Amino acid sequence: MALNFSVDLSLDYTVVTKILVGFIADCFQKANAQSAVIGLSGGLDSAVVAKLSAEALRLERVLGVVMPYKTSAPESIADALRFGEWLGIRTELVDISPLVDAYFSRQREADANRRGNAMARTRMIVLYDISAREQGLVIGTSNKSELLLGYGTIFGDLACAINPVGDLYKTQMRQLAEYLEIPEYIRKKTPTADLFQGQTDEGDLGFTYDEADRLLFLWVDQRVSEEELKEYGFAQEFINAVFNRVRKNNFKRLPPLIAKFSGRTIGHEFRYPWEWSFVK
Amino acid sequence: MALNFSVDLSLDYTVVTKILVGFIADCFQKANAQSAVIGLSGGLDSAVVAKLSAEALRLERVLGVVMPYKTSAPESIADALRFGEWLGIRTELVDISPLVDAYFSRQREADANRRGNAMARTRMIVLYDISAREQGLVIGTSNKSELLLGYGTIFGDLACAINPVGDLYKTQMRQLAEYLEIPEYIRKKTPTADLFQGQTDEGDLGFTYDEADRLLFLWVDQRVSEEELKEYGFAQEFINAVFNRVRKNNFKRLPPLIAKFSGRTIGHEFRYPWEWSFVK
Repeated sequence: MALNFSVDLSLDYTVVTKILVGFIADCFQKANAQSAVIGLSGGLDSAVVAKLSAEALRLERVLGVVMPYKTSAPESIADALRFGEWLGIRTELVDISPLVDAYFSRQREADANRRGNAMARTRMIVLYDISAREQGLVIGTSNKSELLLGYGTIFGDLACAINPVGDLYKTQMRQLAEYLEIPEYIRKKTPTADLFQGQTDEGDLGFTYDEADRLLFLWVDQRVSEEELKEYGFAQEFINAVFNRVRKNNFKRLPPLIAKFSGRTIGHEFRYPWEWSFVK
Repeated sequence: MALNFSVDLSLDYTVVTKILVGFIADCFQKANAQSAVIGLSGGLDSAVVAKLSAEALRLERVLGVVMPYKTSAPESIADALRFGEWLGIRTELVDISPLVDAYFSRQREADANRRGNAMARTRMIVLYDISAREQGLVIGTSNKSELLLGYGTIFGDLACAINPVGDLYKTQMRQLAEYLEIPEYIRKKTPTADLFQGQTDEGDLGFTYDEADRLLFLWVDQRVSEEELKEYGFAQEFINAVFNRVRKNNFKRLPPLIAKFSGRTIGHEFRYPWEWSFVK
């Protein structure tokens, strides 16, 4: 797409790293948690989160959990384990195939979408159970592009205690990964949910993160109107595709909707920040 | 506990029913959803939600899913199926034992708490998968007492699309169940998460819903201060036990905490209501 102007999403990654490392350290101190539990996919986002966690805590307090399904690419598993070893954190391998297959043996007609969501949610169960065992916190790895576009499974990979990278676009995650010197075999990989062979994020979405991030940044962060976006060279069809995804996945970014009766309904008047739990 | 006054939580259940039936019907219309998918436990809360859903939609659009684990009480399963038949909705039985056991065969040291959470989350996977199959919405059944006290599993039984009863205390749920003429074998049952034999909610909590609801209602809804609560006759120890549960479970009522960078962070400045998804 030829835009009539350039969009610069880059940040000062020295500052970004300092803030995120402080954020993780602070959350762990407040929650009195021992270990950071992270699902390591072999991809860029989880590698960045593992590296930031390792800077915030001691290496032995970071646990990367590698959770392949039988259709996962063998190189994803190998890369995830190799990265964990390179970083010096603990890793644990849990094959989720028996868990997922125990269910779908009786739901044989289920399509790839249903199976993919069940896999993501099964990984959540494993991460949360290991987190209980380790007195840890599950650290989320969904970036702002994924969260806005709804490219993730609610109560699956979107489930976590804290998410240090949820306000960074994929474009910014790539820049941060380079700053953090994440190895090239992780950084240069095509983003994929790895639910079936040949799947890529950008194939599923129908556009690239590079394109989407420029539009999202202007629309969400800069509050540029739809009319102006068209003047800037974005195609109407592309604008619609992105806007529709952001809107229809709004529910994934919210707690469940509660019917309101009282003067203080949970999520409305009765809504305290995360840190309220740890006061006193 | 002898209080120096009486607390009346009762509501006009004709109005309550009308509002909740309208809430469910409205949500289904906006989301263009077909079926209400409800985990039927054999207990009071899920029976009330099923009954309200049946009033809001047609009977054949309500699906009660009964999901026993091998340690579940046989009478719970029987009561859930019997209730579904009495109401005239569809029911489906899914034994979660093979799913749960496939995981814990390799985490043998896991305690009852870890196992219980994994069971609740496995039920979530089943409900969400069936909901996808049925183009439905998962309807939550956690009441205000449970939500405030954190008596539930995050990303497990707390996970749902909409929750019609999340602003009603257990005391009010019992009154509503009576108004709705839910059968006595459901209404008169001792509340239990049914994760192991002999478990009861009130045994786990260390106090009754009756006691907790009076305190919670005064504190949360009426904004009565801690000092005043003591003057009213609540024991300091009981106040502490309830306040501590409400506080330490705050995280279960919130979306994951995202580290903030931008001028429009998800969950902060970028936060739209549920209905935003369906506008246009």
